[in-house]
Amino acid sequence: MKAEIITIGNELLETGRVDSNSAFIGERLTLLGASVTRSTTVPDVPGLIGEAVESAMGRVDLVIVTGGLGPTVDDRTKEAVARLFGKKLVLDEDVLASVRAHFEKRGLSMPESTVSQAMVPEGARVVENPLGTAPGLLLEQKETLVFVLPGVPVEMRAIFEGYVVPYLEGRGLRKLTQECLLRTTGVPESVLSERIGGIAKRLARVDVAYLPRVTGVDIRITGRGETLKKARIAVESAQERLANELGECVYARGDESLEQVVGYLLSMKGKTVSVAESCTGGLLGWTFTRISGSSDYFIGGLIAYSNDLKKRLVGVKAGILKEHGAVSAETAQAMARGARTKTRSDYGVGVTGIAGPGGGSEERPVGLVYIAVSGARRERVREFRFTGGRDNVRKQACQAALDMLRRTLLNLPVGSPTL
Amino acid sequence: MKAEIITIGNELLETGRVDSNSAFIGERLTLLGASVTRSTTVPDVPGLIGEAVESAMGRVDLVIVTGGLGPTVDDRTKEAVARLFGKKLVLDEDVLASVRAHFEKRGLSMPESTVSQAMVPEGARVVENPLGTAPGLLLEQKETLVFVLPGVPVEMRAIFEGYVVPYLEGRGLRKLTQECLLRTTGVPESVLSERIGGIAKRLARVDVAYLPRVTGVDIRITGRGETLKKARIAVESAQERLANELGECVYARGDESLEQVVGYLLSMKGKTVSVAESCTGGLLGWTFTRISGSSDYFIGGLIAYSNDLKKRLVGVKAGILKEHGAVSAETAQAMARGARTKTRSDYGVGVTGIAGPGGGSEERPVGLVYIAVSGARRERVREFRFTGGRDNVRKQACQAALDMLRRTLLNLPVGSPTL
Repeated sequence: MKAEIITIGNELLETGRVDSNSAFIGERLTLLGASVTRSTTVPDVPGLIGEAVESAMGRVDLVIVTGGLGPTVDDRTKEAVARLFGKKLVLDEDVLASVRAHFEKRGLSMPESTVSQAMVPEGARVVENPLGTAPGLLLEQKETLVFVLPGVPVEMRAIFEGYVVPYLEGRGLRKLTQECLLRTTGVPESVLSERIGGIAKRLARVDVAYLPRVTGVDIRITGRGETLKKARIAVESAQERLANELGECVYARGDESLEQVVGYLLSMKGKTVSVAESCTGGLLGWTFTRISGSSDYFIGGLIAYSNDLKKRLVGVKAGILKEHGAVSAETAQAMARGARTKTRSDYGVGVTGIAGPGGGSEERPVGLVYIAVSGARRERVREFRFTGGRDNVRKQACQAALDMLRRTLLNLPVGSPTL
Repeated sequence: MKAEIITIGNELLETGRVDSNSAFIGERLTLLGASVTRSTTVPDVPGLIGEAVESAMGRVDLVIVTGGLGPTVDDRTKEAVARLFGKKLVLDEDVLASVRAHFEKRGLSMPESTVSQAMVPEGARVVENPLGTAPGLLLEQKETLVFVLPGVPVEMRAIFEGYVVPYLEGRGLRKLTQECLLRTTGVPESVLSERIGGIAKRLARVDVAYLPRVTGVDIRITGRGETLKKARIAVESAQERLANELGECVYARGDESLEQVVGYLLSMKGKTVSVAESCTGGLLGWTFTRISGSSDYFIGGLIAYSNDLKKRLVGVKAGILKEHGAVSAETAQAMARGARTKTRSDYGVGVTGIAGPGGGSEERPVGLVYIAVSGARRERVREFRFTGGRDNVRKQACQAALDMLRRTLLNLPVGSPTL
């Protein structure tokens, strides 16, 4: 099956806003075995939209269109598509009802303009939008399928995964590749590739890609085969082989986040954790609580941005701050201990550092961060030197704190950034 | 001048890699007064590349092509473009010399494959690449300009800014548009457009676009004129007009974030703030501290995820939790007051709610959030009902908390989500 993607919106052509939808759709279709031969972006101009969709329909048998389904006057996609298919826009009562419900849920009355959300090309199949007011549409002409999806990424993805993928699988598309991840943190890409590059090259029917992020490097393993089963076997043995080679810097063998993994470990052991955050300012707490159900093990903590609060809220001794400074191993340790004792949790995590851009010096540069984990029996503290801007330093600090807790829960050494 | 952008590379269509080049080029060309009518991505397949460039040349007078200029076998752009223009690829000695120099500078000998970097379509103008080995190319046919640039973003941008922009200015393109933003929060796009849509349509030489985000809607105003000055006048009067119409929901008339605006206000007044977070779990603290220098006004706070910590750390009375529940106006107010008194800040912000996916009920659904701001003289609390997934509910809660503080600092009513 050959496919093209069409994304619609002036903002994608004029404002520097990056189009993430076509990248997502292209990857998903490729994994389903479709060949994606083109992606086109056009402005919210009915003539240009219609021309783009029409020529795509002449080239391929699957066209995925996103964007321009909003309630405002500059959303023209449905009108353009309806004209192209020679249909008129008609009111869909079900959509209208769900749009109205969407507003009532938020205690709002539905603005008149929103009625346009319920106008659909006659004869189009309407696909419910679980997260928003603009429904998806499916139109068909001869052998060509045209899906029209909202441009809001979270809404587009929900409809794509929930409806488009099952529909295409029903039409015989199926995966002959199998992917898996090895998620690592604390080790640079260059070190990882030195470590496993040679082995990866010798693995049969497997591609290995490094996906570096601020918080670590994901290693994507893609297996190929005449059947999905063969692909899965190839990928699983490769994953096993590479994971063993990499050792403890691998925190997940799937797409779990580090906070999920740490959450599992805490739940399994029936332990609780709390935080005392300085330079991360709350990021660690926010990250723990991204996991629904985290209230089972994350009880809370303290954001001690000022030294005064480090003393009064967290209980860091004035002497420690005076002697070693707010950014020191001693202060991080006292913060971790303070979090644990003040909140009566099993583990406390303390983070203090210089996020920048200001506040750095020759021997104490921006990016210097101390992280401590305090348990009833054992306390560990480590110095890190991160690079990058303020937010990146803080994100790396948060990830490193989670990883120190993971290593503590697994009785692993807290590790050094070069394995 | 009408322009199209063509980006080339399988990775853009298959691997989920986002195409940032077309967004960059589109914005820069728009600012130069060109109208960007399409952006196309095709794989590294000569036939598809040629077809895309040829049809673009039939529609517009400026085509910018990026990608597929590397030394590897899957870089086919030059070959495709040469064929399209009926030229053969010839060796350019100057390029060869600079490629060789590029390697020698790094103490490396030039790999044979790299010679291909010096092959250019006969008659094409060669544009030096200051940061890499793949030169840019300029080809002309009748009235149509075709620039071919490397796909590595930093190299593409260097050539674009250093050569393409001056060249186009020489052809008479110059910035005749002026943009500005109105940033709003708490009001749905549909309500905003109902409020200002009519006026916006009647504004001369001005385009208004709505850019919705989870945390609010940005309104982009673009002014046009025969001169930049006229465009600026058009945009400024439009901004004034629309801002007055929209009133308090506008928190910034530029690209400042809400946390920046709140930071200015606190600094100006010499006031400090602290937080007590339940459902946001630290996001509010993290957001305050994204601003470097926020330590002047943000001192810290408490993450009270468990009821026990709401009592022991924040000082919420057991009776309040018992009588009204953890998710209630009374608890939010007690949390805000507790944050202020425990940290001795001027303002305390309390956030408690049901982030989901679990924990909701018919009358107390997921998305129900109570936010309170406590000052020495005055306390305000408000109920919100947000929609979307767990993270989106929490992001909206954080933004709403910042906005309630902004409104408090400006002595504005805390407002209702429908203006």
